[in-house]
Amino acid sequence: MTTITTDLAQTIVEKAQQKARELNVNVCIAITDSGAHLAMFYRMEQAFIGSIDVAIAKARTSVLFPLPSDEFGQLIRDEQLTGMELTNQHLVGFSGGIPIIRNGSVIGAIGISGASTEHDKLIAQYAVTDR
Amino acid sequence: MTTITTDLAQTIVEKAQQKARELNVNVCIAITDSGAHLAMFYRMEQAFIGSIDVAIAKARTSVLFPLPSDEFGQLIRDEQLTGMELTNQHLVGFSGGIPIIRNGSVIGAIGISGASTEHDKLIAQYAVTDR
Amino acid sequence: MTTITTDLAQTIVEKAQQKARELNVNVCIAITDSGAHLAMFYRMEQAFIGSIDVAIAKARTSVLFPLPSDEFGQLIRDEQLTGMELTNQHLVGFSGGIPIIRNGSVIGAIGISGASTEHDKLIAQYAVTDR
Amino acid sequence: MTTITTDLAQTIVEKAQQKARELNVNVCIAITDSGAHLAMFYRMEQAFIGSIDVAIAKARTSVLFPLPSDEFGQLIRDEQLTGMELTNQHLVGFSGGIPIIRNGSVIGAIGISGASTEHDKLIAQYAVTDR
Repeated sequence: MTTITTDLAQTIVEKAQQKARELNVNVCIAITDSGAHLAMFYRMEQAFIGSIDVAIAKARTSVLFPLPSDEFGQLIRDEQLTGMELTNQHLVGFSGGIPIIRNGSVIGAIGISGASTEHDKLIAQYAVTDR
Repeated sequence: MTTITTDLAQTIVEKAQQKARELNVNVCIAITDSGAHLAMFYRMEQAFIGSIDVAIAKARTSVLFPLPSDEFGQLIRDEQLTGMELTNQHLVGFSGGIPIIRNGSVIGAIGISGASTEHDKLIAQYAVTDR
Repeated sequence: MTTITTDLAQTIVEKAQQKARELNVNVCIAITDSGAHLAMFYRMEQAFIGSIDVAIAKARTSVLFPLPSDEFGQLIRDEQLTGMELTNQHLVGFSGGIPIIRNGSVIGAIGISGASTEHDKLIAQYAVTDR
Repeated sequence: MTTITTDLAQTIVEKAQQKARELNVNVCIAITDSGAHLAMFYRMEQAFIGSIDVAIAKARTSVLFPLPSDEFGQLIRDEQLTGMELTNQHLVGFSGGIPIIRNGSVIGAIGISGASTEHDKLIAQYAVTDR
């Protein structure tokens, strides 16, 4: 598999919803494919409208530069990569984006936005783990 | 209900998938809320990458100007509404976008893209009908 | 091969240059991968500056909707797909973009711009043919 | 020579590839002309998709403000040039962009992205040096 299948995207979206409900938060869930194109999107009831674009940007970021979005942000700040977040339309450098890796290949990414950055990250991690 | 619920969006996305499978086509399915913001998005396996943006644009168009997107396009062409399709970031004036109406109110819209315009329209109509 | 290799992109760019020299025209040559991202770009001496963006747009168009860009344009005009060319940032609907297909899969596309549409097309066709 | 020739651009792109292979890294290589327009682009196998736009932005930056892109970034930060990186579509203020100077004139620039900023800079410096 070089890019995420619809079935796997669906499974990951459902796991993200389940974790968000456990944490009692409302989030936007975005899945991008290996080309950083939107594969699936799910907005939970009452999630912020502003989180739509953030969730999609996190998922794009974590494919374009295959790192968790918070690690990518740390790199931007540590290395003073002035203007990096303006490239590729715009990128996001905080928790909630995670690459989806299978057999060592980045086949896509998830982006979660709407809760605290800690909760966004927990949801993303739970959803992409291969179990 | 003033805007579409997540449950209703989910139901409509599933009905659209079902109809697309019946017609043996692969499409992108977008649902926008009453504020023209993305509520849900589903890309079927093998749907064109280019159809992602088109499906979302159709669903945005049919909330911003609450008409089926093909009727909106006819209006643009008949009335020579020069530049109209350039407004609101960009709009789409052909089949596949339909407002979702409940109790006389526009609570959102669906946008389908990826098959012929006739099939896109059939899928959208089937999915939004209240049965 | 699911997306174009650098070696194949290089070969196609060189074949395009060779054909352009035969025709005594100066063009821009763009190659996109299967995700519509730029893989390679070559501007021949004296090619119009304005052709840079056109060549890239043709190559993006022919991946996003896997058709020769002139056939895609014909579809837009015949079916009155108002606003279609404004989607996906912007698309191009005239000769010069051709999908690159190997073993039945679209692995990328070429976009040629700078000469007449007939010559742009000839160059693109010559360059992508598998010989 | 007021702007870079295709032959010189080609030579510089090849020297950049050679240095990148020596360093065992995969990068995107962009060359802009004296008008900051793309002259040539080469993406090495496995280079990040996100590096395409960054490499082009570095090469644009180093023509628009004829400085190495890291020195330009330092200037933005030291002088608190708020919003500078948002101008000209967007600019990049870290290592990897270098003006190409011949006979005291800026005839173009190179932008390298995909490795560490140190390696990106080494590759750019090696490629543009006139030997």
